[in-house]
Amino acid sequence: MAASQKCLGKGSPAPGPVPKDHIRLYSMRFCPFAQRTRLVLNAKGIKYDTININLKNKPDWFLEKNPLGLVPVLETQSGQVIYESPITCEYLDEVYPEKKLLPFDPFERAQQRMLLELFSKVTPYFYKIPVNRTKGEDVSALETELKDKLSQFNEILLKKKSKFFGGDSITMIDYMMWPWFERLETMNLKHCLDGTPELKKWTERMMEDPTVKATMFSTETYMVFYKSYMEGNPNYDYGL
Amino acid sequence: MAASQKCLGKGSPAPGPVPKDHIRLYSMRFCPFAQRTRLVLNAKGIKYDTININLKNKPDWFLEKNPLGLVPVLETQSGQVIYESPITCEYLDEVYPEKKLLPFDPFERAQQRMLLELFSKVTPYFYKIPVNRTKGEDVSALETELKDKLSQFNEILLKKKSKFFGGDSITMIDYMMWPWFERLETMNLKHCLDGTPELKKWTERMMEDPTVKATMFSTETYMVFYKSYMEGNPNYDYGL
Repeated sequence: MAASQKCLGKGSPAPGPVPKDHIRLYSMRFCPFAQRTRLVLNAKGIKYDTININLKNKPDWFLEKNPLGLVPVLETQSGQVIYESPITCEYLDEVYPEKKLLPFDPFERAQQRMLLELFSKVTPYFYKIPVNRTKGEDVSALETELKDKLSQFNEILLKKKSKFFGGDSITMIDYMMWPWFERLETMNLKHCLDGTPELKKWTERMMEDPTVKATMFSTETYMVFYKSYMEGNPNYDYGL
Repeated sequence: MAASQKCLGKGSPAPGPVPKDHIRLYSMRFCPFAQRTRLVLNAKGIKYDTININLKNKPDWFLEKNPLGLVPVLETQSGQVIYESPITCEYLDEVYPEKKLLPFDPFERAQQRMLLELFSKVTPYFYKIPVNRTKGEDVSALETELKDKLSQFNEILLKKKSKFFGGDSITMIDYMMWPWFERLETMNLKHCLDGTPELKKWTERMMEDPTVKATMFSTETYMVFYKSYMEGNPNYDYGL
């Protein structure tokens, strides 16, 4: 089953067994958290099938797998279920040894986890700013806060003097952060990178990565999706 | 330096180098998050020294180590700094192979991380309920929510039919959750376990663990500390 399969909602029949030699991803095509897992699956060349979920109208069989009702969710052939995006990604990196994305050194791994924790304070702005803007509110204070947070990441790259956050090649932390940067233009937040040149260069390098290219959508597509999302009627299947 | 050292506040001289063959823990004696790390350090028999921090009046040298200003923080002899309690604990388990606390199987590890994520929705009640009670507010709705959350953990033990959350012996997830259960009586929340007999039995088993015994404080001690904390003047050195 391809990643381009239409989403399944309440009342839909439960999908069949996970195909042989595959792992299954429950996803939503435009979800940044699920994109983390898609990036890791693609980067590591893991065979997987995708079941897209209608998150506004979730199937009961999906809620049985993850009572939190969120994507991404992984399901193995033996029926093991894993959710929470960083947990799914670490799991994949541990089970599939090809192209390790987390560093071998425990301190470097801890550093990546600390960076991820720091980044978890960034993602809420990608929701708060557009929502407040839609309401016609002044978002300049929120944008200043976001810029301050982004400048911390600029500083880290400056200090490390490396192309990516884990060194000169892409590692787990880059993929964990990428989905939100891919949506900067859609969210009308691209100017927030004006004061952070190192981070801007990082986004340009990321855009050249084959895995990033393989999982991304165009700003035009995101625009249509996020408009429908903001209007309360998300067009999960847009473009299919 | 023993864990019973008085806390250091703003203006205090920075501590000397980390002693040979030791790792350093920056802690606060009554902090449940720092207790997670103390439990892991003790369970694994790791040599460590402790610097207790005055969290109301933090030394500048501490803020330089962790700009978030929170404990626990680990510092190695080479000056590597690790913070965020689950990250410190995973780091210790990875670096010190003796008595592994995380399971070897990647799915079981993922399960422990999912449980920890679920438990992160529990800990805020240990702050919210006492604070609202102090204000004289009705906390019965919050207590019902807490009981609902705790019943999820009771269900997990029932389903697993095991003595602890990772099997019949204590593993990482038990230590990650324990500090809040140690404070149930202090917070006047012990009755919240009345409907969750399996979880209650788990707390009784935990109390018998030598590591838990070695790191715990009495309810009387916690009572004095939390009273001073609620009054805005935390007695970090109580009992020393």
